Amino acid sequence: MKKKIRIQDEFWSKYRELVRKEMIPYQWKVLNDEIDIHIERERNDDSIPNEKSHAIENFRIAAGLKEGHHYGWVFQDSDVYKWLEAVAYSLNEYMDEELKSLADSVVDLIAAAQEEDGYLGTYFTIEEPERKLKRLNESHELYCAGHFMEAAVAYYEAVGNKTVLETACKLADYIARNFGEEKIHGYDGHEEIEIGLAKLYRVTGKKEYLDLGKYFLEIRGTNPEFFSNQNKEDGKAPLISGLDKFPQSYYQNHMPLLQQETAEGHAVRLVYMCTAMADIAALTKDEKMLNACKKIWRNIVDKRMYITGGIGSTVIGESFTLDYDLPNDTMYCETCASVGLIFFAKRLLENEFVGEYGDVMERALYNTALAGMALDGKHFFYVNPLEVVPEKGKKDPTKSHVKSVRPEWLGCACCPPNLARLLASLEKYVYIQKDSTILANLFMNCDGQFEVEGNTISIKQETNYPWNKRIQFKVDCEEKTEFTLGIRIPNWADSYFIQVNGEIYDTDDKQGIAYVSKEFCNDVIEILFDMKVEIWDAHTSVRNNIDKVAVSRGPIVYCLEEVDNGENLHLLSLDKNTEFTYQFREDLLGGVGVINAKGCERPATSLSNSNLYQKHKAQIETKERELMLIPYFAWGNRGENEMQVWIRQER
Amino acid sequence: MKKKIRIQDEFWSKYRELVRKEMIPYQWKVLNDEIDIHIERERNDDSIPNEKSHAIENFRIAAGLKEGHHYGWVFQDSDVYKWLEAVAYSLNEYMDEELKSLADSVVDLIAAAQEEDGYLGTYFTIEEPERKLKRLNESHELYCAGHFMEAAVAYYEAVGNKTVLETACKLADYIARNFGEEKIHGYDGHEEIEIGLAKLYRVTGKKEYLDLGKYFLEIRGTNPEFFSNQNKEDGKAPLISGLDKFPQSYYQNHMPLLQQETAEGHAVRLVYMCTAMADIAALTKDEKMLNACKKIWRNIVDKRMYITGGIGSTVIGESFTLDYDLPNDTMYCETCASVGLIFFAKRLLENEFVGEYGDVMERALYNTALAGMALDGKHFFYVNPLEVVPEKGKKDPTKSHVKSVRPEWLGCACCPPNLARLLASLEKYVYIQKDSTILANLFMNCDGQFEVEGNTISIKQETNYPWNKRIQFKVDCEEKTEFTLGIRIPNWADSYFIQVNGEIYDTDDKQGIAYVSKEFCNDVIEILFDMKVEIWDAHTSVRNNIDKVAVSRGPIVYCLEEVDNGENLHLLSLDKNTEFTYQFREDLLGGVGVINAKGCERPATSLSNSNLYQKHKAQIETKERELMLIPYFAWGNRGENEMQVWIRQER
Repeated sequence: MKKKIRIQDEFWSKYRELVRKEMIPYQWKVLNDEIDIHIERERNDDSIPNEKSHAIENFRIAAGLKEGHHYGWVFQDSDVYKWLEAVAYSLNEYMDEELKSLADSVVDLIAAAQEEDGYLGTYFTIEEPERKLKRLNESHELYCAGHFMEAAVAYYEAVGNKTVLETACKLADYIARNFGEEKIHGYDGHEEIEIGLAKLYRVTGKKEYLDLGKYFLEIRGTNPEFFSNQNKEDGKAPLISGLDKFPQSYYQNHMPLLQQETAEGHAVRLVYMCTAMADIAALTKDEKMLNACKKIWRNIVDKRMYITGGIGSTVIGESFTLDYDLPNDTMYCETCASVGLIFFAKRLLENEFVGEYGDVMERALYNTALAGMALDGKHFFYVNPLEVVPEKGKKDPTKSHVKSVRPEWLGCACCPPNLARLLASLEKYVYIQKDSTILANLFMNCDGQFEVEGNTISIKQETNYPWNKRIQFKVDCEEKTEFTLGIRIPNWADSYFIQVNGEIYDTDDKQGIAYVSKEFCNDVIEILFDMKVEIWDAHTSVRNNIDKVAVSRGPIVYCLEEVDNGENLHLLSLDKNTEFTYQFREDLLGGVGVINAKGCERPATSLSNSNLYQKHKAQIETKERELMLIPYFAWGNRGENEMQVWIRQER
Repeated sequence: MKKKIRIQDEFWSKYRELVRKEMIPYQWKVLNDEIDIHIERERNDDSIPNEKSHAIENFRIAAGLKEGHHYGWVFQDSDVYKWLEAVAYSLNEYMDEELKSLADSVVDLIAAAQEEDGYLGTYFTIEEPERKLKRLNESHELYCAGHFMEAAVAYYEAVGNKTVLETACKLADYIARNFGEEKIHGYDGHEEIEIGLAKLYRVTGKKEYLDLGKYFLEIRGTNPEFFSNQNKEDGKAPLISGLDKFPQSYYQNHMPLLQQETAEGHAVRLVYMCTAMADIAALTKDEKMLNACKKIWRNIVDKRMYITGGIGSTVIGESFTLDYDLPNDTMYCETCASVGLIFFAKRLLENEFVGEYGDVMERALYNTALAGMALDGKHFFYVNPLEVVPEKGKKDPTKSHVKSVRPEWLGCACCPPNLARLLASLEKYVYIQKDSTILANLFMNCDGQFEVEGNTISIKQETNYPWNKRIQFKVDCEEKTEFTLGIRIPNWADSYFIQVNGEIYDTDDKQGIAYVSKEFCNDVIEILFDMKVEIWDAHTSVRNNIDKVAVSRGPIVYCLEEVDNGENLHLLSLDKNTEFTYQFREDLLGGVGVINAKGCERPATSLSNSNLYQKHKAQIETKERELMLIPYFAWGNRGENEMQVWIRQER
């Protein structure tokens, strides 16, 4: 019997219901062109046309059921796969027969669009069959295949649909036949296939899939000329214009992967690659590969990650830049990249119980990932700034990617379905079991069932996390069982306090995890974290955060919003002696904890003084005032306004 | 008799000699492909090839003296014209017969490349004669024509060469025949022709040239579709790729020029346009046009200009962005744009004696314009940042345009020759005479000769400006003459003190100018400015300069450089009670005044602490230390290093 977790949590269930009730049906309509997609351009100057997805129609055409042309991005298929994956997880939680039969029909359609030899990819099947696999830096063919494999495994596990698994295996076999030393000795520009192959291996046990995934990783970057050689050979127009301006590091193709020590290039690609590395390293007990991805992890976490768990410091190539380069207003911090960082953290944590992996996961989850979605579940941020002045996004082209209100589903629909599949499968992130140790990694109300040495163990988690510091684990064993309950101690908690059945339980945590080992039967384990408002300094090498602090409480990073604090947030500062008042506000933003603090307001240059530069005034009379902070994830839900995470502090 | 100024100044003569002895000969070699041009790319990832100019060769081919193809930018011709203009000014100051005969031969070559009907433009003559004047947003045909007219007038005035003036008139006549209501009812994407036509009018007295210039200005933006309609009609591939992504404001074509109230779009284009507006408005006594350009002036000076006189807040489109948006590390601040701002200020000042026009001119001249050139006269900044961390320019693509050391002559060679023609004609900016008032606008050692009511007046200016506050004007009149000497009181001077022949002279300044009116004969007027080290606040709406100050002395803005202060300049701050020590250092950077101050250094996060985010430390022990500031214009002459103009100040 496998572990089985059911989430019934006030904080998370509303998001998961939004996924089930709003996002999945909405996405289905988009995929079927029943909703016009509002395309947001990088430049604000052009008129903004509406566009369609055409994704399901592409499959119909590829399957020969319809006449017509492919429309949309070359990777448009992946939208359908991500939708299917989210549906699978959703059915896991709540079996909806109508949705299942809809998904079954999509599986049949995908299978029908697959070619005889196993090739699956509507763009090339319909438009340019002669260019299959010939332009891998742009084609996203293996990227789409990887997403399909993930979806197939999820859907097979959810409902037992065999067609989907067979289609995925047929595709994997096709890829295996075409790639290798004597064949196409290369890889996709966008990593993802490696994750899919590892999942397919887990379900089918077919080692060739694991080997193929490992092969793709091991040869990556060993021939940085691979893509340009392919493109030269192809000789035709690019499939995606503009990619040629990026360096090979954009694809993590600048040096052999196992030698890469820093997070470079397109952030989503990088974390997908690392996810696969951690997974396949664990499956193949490859220490070298594991150490390689842990080096990149260290680089991200120690030098290239925003306090919100966002990654990708520049819009150009949606990429990492350099150590400690974390601008708050021009960054990219794509929602997808944080979702990918969560995938990466999960694989590392599954391999080794180190609290930090869960800490980073929690940081990315409660902040950037969650910020990706509006409270209505229908509007999404791709870009997650830490500082916004709406007018700048409109008039300064270097910030034109920075929106201050979540747009609807966009033309390149990577983030919303990625978020959907994460939220719908959240139960997979709560506990991680290794032999007779069960690690409680995330905290939310849920019922879990585990098997330890043949015995079934139920653990009911009760908490008001993330707003409350208390978590109870009610353990109920079929028979008395010796096992260990690990509890991750979040890095923000200065101390914690464990009681077992009402008795104080002393334990030292090991690598950020506290362990309770005993013969369990019916027991109540309670942990209290020292959850208070915290203020944070950034490393002094983060130049733009000097003299500024960030505020958090528990896993939640807070921010100032104009609607609560007035305009010109840059003139506000935290009083250095402020106390903080925390209050849960049922009435605000669907129910969130807010923080009040004493602040100072610097007077603005008077309107009568039009001088851009004035002789320095040594004495400035700042005005005392109250500041109100809201959770970062909830910003941008009350119209266009300024927002700021890093706040000046009076010294 | 016209006024005649001869500069013999320790500060300026070295730059002017660099222009004469280094830049002009060097540029000549470049134009003739005797020097490989080192092309700097916007992206750092590509291999950097060497390229040639081919500009003279293009003329030979267009003239039928050689076979071959046009090479280089579509506006490559303008490099030759700007060189010729600089040569003209240089010959004005120092007649070099060899250089003159070389320039004469270039004039002959240009005339030979001109077509029968007056058309002049090597790209279209050689490559695509059928597309002449059909793609004006990109073609730069009138832009090049304007530069030729400026050069022609300068060269004619310097040496009396008639061919050059005839060629320019023939070209102007060609343009007049082709543009107008019933003809091509439009304008060039890059303003400049209007400046050229006004100069040509001044020399020839032909009113049709002035009318044509005015026409171009008056219809600008009245039909924002003009360019896109032309391009549609042309239907062929763009001449310059990528321009289509910019909005019409890039060309100041978004609304009728006379209604524009803010500085929008490409900064160089904008200031060239404003220069022409101010000039033609004065020549035609057009109050409406004068007020329109003064509105734009106010917007630049009050809201969109860096303290260094730099303009253009973003690299994207090398453009203005929005009010008070003045980022220090991603801006463009092109050297050419500040040169253009100086042109604009001069026209306004010629029209109306307002000190502010001279103040801004001085700011741009001593800071951004001068910073454009290395002390060796052979390396040039196009982009003039106010804050540089060299590694960021290399690894963060949003800052890849920001160099920390001046490169050699670049492929698009706008800035160096623009700087050359400004420096070589600097005498035109020193005094401005209107009837019997002579305004001393810039301060440097020079001999001036003026005519007032038929009498010749010599004024010898003696000073060690910009390092010293004392300026003497030794006036020597042929005959006793009643006139007024105006002296601009720079905006940084809190007070000033005038003596006439050793006697205190009390006068109130009017709009930033002090006037000494008397019957002059042999007189010594001495002025002392209150020249001390000043610290400046930016307007509080400049978000990134909150809590920071800039330091200046006289017209010179200062900066911190790593070579003097160590790395991590962002950790340094000015002590709020610091006194400043100013010292002229003969041994440094060719002789500059340096400023020492008391500062504080914030400790860097210790190397042993690898955490990117740490719980806030309320107490930070800053370390007292000395800071050394050098003039901004001299930065980047001692190898790659950090630089910073706006400095934190401990509160």
